[in-house]
Amino acid sequence: MTVYEVIDAKKQKRELDQEQIRFFVRAVADGSASDAQIAAFCMAVLLNGMTDEESYLLTDAMAASGERPIRPPVSGVIADKHSTGGVSDSTTLILVPVLCSLGVRCAKYSGRGLGHTGGTLDKLESFAGFRTALTAEEFAAQIGRVGGAVAGQTEHTVPADKRMYAVRDVTATIDSIPLIASSVMSKKLASFADVILLDVKYGDGAFMRTAKEAERLARLMVKIGARAGRKVSAAVTNMDAPLGDAIGCNAEVREAVAILGGKRNALAELSLFLAEKLLAQAFSLPDKEARARVEETIASGAALKKLAEIVAAQGGDAHAVYDASLLPLAPREAVLCAEEGGVLRVAARKLGEACLLLGGGRQHAEDAIDHTVGIVLTRRDGDPVRAGEEIARVYCRGEAAEALGRARSAFSYLREYRPEKLVYDYIEAEE
Amino acid sequence: MTVYEVIDAKKQKRELDQEQIRFFVRAVADGSASDAQIAAFCMAVLLNGMTDEESYLLTDAMAASGERPIRPPVSGVIADKHSTGGVSDSTTLILVPVLCSLGVRCAKYSGRGLGHTGGTLDKLESFAGFRTALTAEEFAAQIGRVGGAVAGQTEHTVPADKRMYAVRDVTATIDSIPLIASSVMSKKLASFADVILLDVKYGDGAFMRTAKEAERLARLMVKIGARAGRKVSAAVTNMDAPLGDAIGCNAEVREAVAILGGKRNALAELSLFLAEKLLAQAFSLPDKEARARVEETIASGAALKKLAEIVAAQGGDAHAVYDASLLPLAPREAVLCAEEGGVLRVAARKLGEACLLLGGGRQHAEDAIDHTVGIVLTRRDGDPVRAGEEIARVYCRGEAAEALGRARSAFSYLREYRPEKLVYDYIEAEE
Repeated sequence: MTVYEVIDAKKQKRELDQEQIRFFVRAVADGSASDAQIAAFCMAVLLNGMTDEESYLLTDAMAASGERPIRPPVSGVIADKHSTGGVSDSTTLILVPVLCSLGVRCAKYSGRGLGHTGGTLDKLESFAGFRTALTAEEFAAQIGRVGGAVAGQTEHTVPADKRMYAVRDVTATIDSIPLIASSVMSKKLASFADVILLDVKYGDGAFMRTAKEAERLARLMVKIGARAGRKVSAAVTNMDAPLGDAIGCNAEVREAVAILGGKRNALAELSLFLAEKLLAQAFSLPDKEARARVEETIASGAALKKLAEIVAAQGGDAHAVYDASLLPLAPREAVLCAEEGGVLRVAARKLGEACLLLGGGRQHAEDAIDHTVGIVLTRRDGDPVRAGEEIARVYCRGEAAEALGRARSAFSYLREYRPEKLVYDYIEAEE
Repeated sequence: MTVYEVIDAKKQKRELDQEQIRFFVRAVADGSASDAQIAAFCMAVLLNGMTDEESYLLTDAMAASGERPIRPPVSGVIADKHSTGGVSDSTTLILVPVLCSLGVRCAKYSGRGLGHTGGTLDKLESFAGFRTALTAEEFAAQIGRVGGAVAGQTEHTVPADKRMYAVRDVTATIDSIPLIASSVMSKKLASFADVILLDVKYGDGAFMRTAKEAERLARLMVKIGARAGRKVSAAVTNMDAPLGDAIGCNAEVREAVAILGGKRNALAELSLFLAEKLLAQAFSLPDKEARARVEETIASGAALKKLAEIVAAQGGDAHAVYDASLLPLAPREAVLCAEEGGVLRVAARKLGEACLLLGGGRQHAEDAIDHTVGIVLTRRDGDPVRAGEEIARVYCRGEAAEALGRARSAFSYLREYRPEKLVYDYIEAEE
């Protein structure tokens, strides 16, 4: 068998078998397939599709392509959650301490922001000294000791995905449902979480533009998870507007802390919904009972305390959890006011791009970012506003005309407008 | 504009415009497009197709990607001919001297054999000392002085094609009609021939398997040529059986010499047909008149003399034209006999592969080849044979069991069988 033959078969719309898929993925991981061959394969998959079985086999082979982290010797289930990425999405910073404080261990692997989307690891680095690069041993030990850890996956974990993703990123082959599903799920299956909740976003600020597409992706990932013997469920959620009120690392961490202190908005609503679903699955509780426990751990301050514990465990300055001045915002503050009266519509992608232009995001994976810049909404998507009323503040450094212009273009004022509901669908694996 | 955007547009089945295609081809030629991006583009073209206009624009941009050889200062038309490759196809060795001896100048760029197919440059190197690497100046000067030259295109001529072809070769993206057409025609348009005859082969020993596919390719190339203001025509010809009786460099050169000396078989028939068509176009003659002149220049020995002249002009030992011992065959001679009686069917590809296994072909572009090995048919495709009758001789060195086995598998004995006709179609550009 050759890499050429596998590409040729997919090009001819043939269904690949396990042997072909494993051979190809091994060749990706060991370097015997060239970048050009990976690109041709990905474009053939994007245009000719894959069956669910092929998608599972691809995921499984990728998950097996590297080192598998060792499960810590703890009783009870270990949970994980994954979002397909959006704007002002700090659910992880809320969800993980909530669950850990309720006795559900969390093994959360996260990523960096890219383009208009933010990344959990960047936000965690807002805590001075926070270490996102844990060894497999440190990661497991912390889950045993503190109940949860949030870290980046090492490059040895799923090397085939790492290489394929780098090729897809420059060859217009990102937007293939089987390729997205296998990329996400290979990283989940390579880890040891028993209960996995996927948050598949659609809309203006997400990679999937329509609810239907997001639902297809969600169903495929749930199916792949079930086929691999994991308890996987997925929420399909809207990302037309920013989820929270803050965009930018320090501003988002401040907001997550505020939500763990009782603040409520769409970000809080989604975080609590996801926490409820994971808790219900982890302990086999009715949703209502799970929800009550989630509300309680926030009200008691236990969740916030757990956040401080996790931050400290990973070397971060936990004082910032209780002292916002340790999460400074950039010194220049520009106030954006409504240009007209009407119902405010806020477009997530444009605000994400504005944050990127401010220096708060990354164009390329190796870019450094400024944690202090960002945008804080004073009025939200769907709010009625009067002309001249303050709608947002932009925290910037020096000249920021382009970023301010981009931010302005995120707002429109409509006669009538009702935002889509936050959770479009929730999918559990069929038994 | 970015390379990414061009790939993305083709992926989404959009028609590319001149600006996009030129941008992409420049990026291929100057190295700013990566191999992975070229592969993704080629797979998207293969699966989503190109309009005739896109194919022309791609060809034109590729032809302009490198240095253009300078037309020699001669009066009258200059002819070129191209075959898409087959087994025992030495039409160039016959056609070029025939035309030159009749006053039609030939600027023939040729290639090397690859896989089961032979290459004209390899065959010419059967003449000791023959130089296939001429500079643009040498090439032009020889056309002026001798009337014709046969050489390899330099790597500066169409660098975009060179790079794209190398990527396509390993990514299963060879068999796309727009990509084949633009590859062939870019090299033709980069040169200065006014009258171009394409021999598009189909069948067992060709890259195109069906006559319909070959015809589509031929029509597209004729259209591209017309759009570029050249006089291009195409013959669609059958390549189920080897064209001549010999496979292997020295054996094929011997056969070409024999045909220039009066021998007739399918190879002679096709060579004379192509010569007639080119001569008719070059001098605006009726086919019949052109055919008479072609027959006459062979009968008089003028064509054979012209071959010797061209060989000598390029540094080759022209004595070999008159002395077959200077084109030696390998010392071990294996006789293949018919295993049954019946009508003989000879499969071109298997014999090409057998020659490759003997060492007479190339697996990779950088492989060296043995000019003395080969196969000579004593009975041809469509001949009735008796069991035990000699059908072919194999010239080899040392152990050659695998090659002999492969050669054997090329023959079958049928109750009834009639070979397809040699010329399926002949296409001229519409005025």
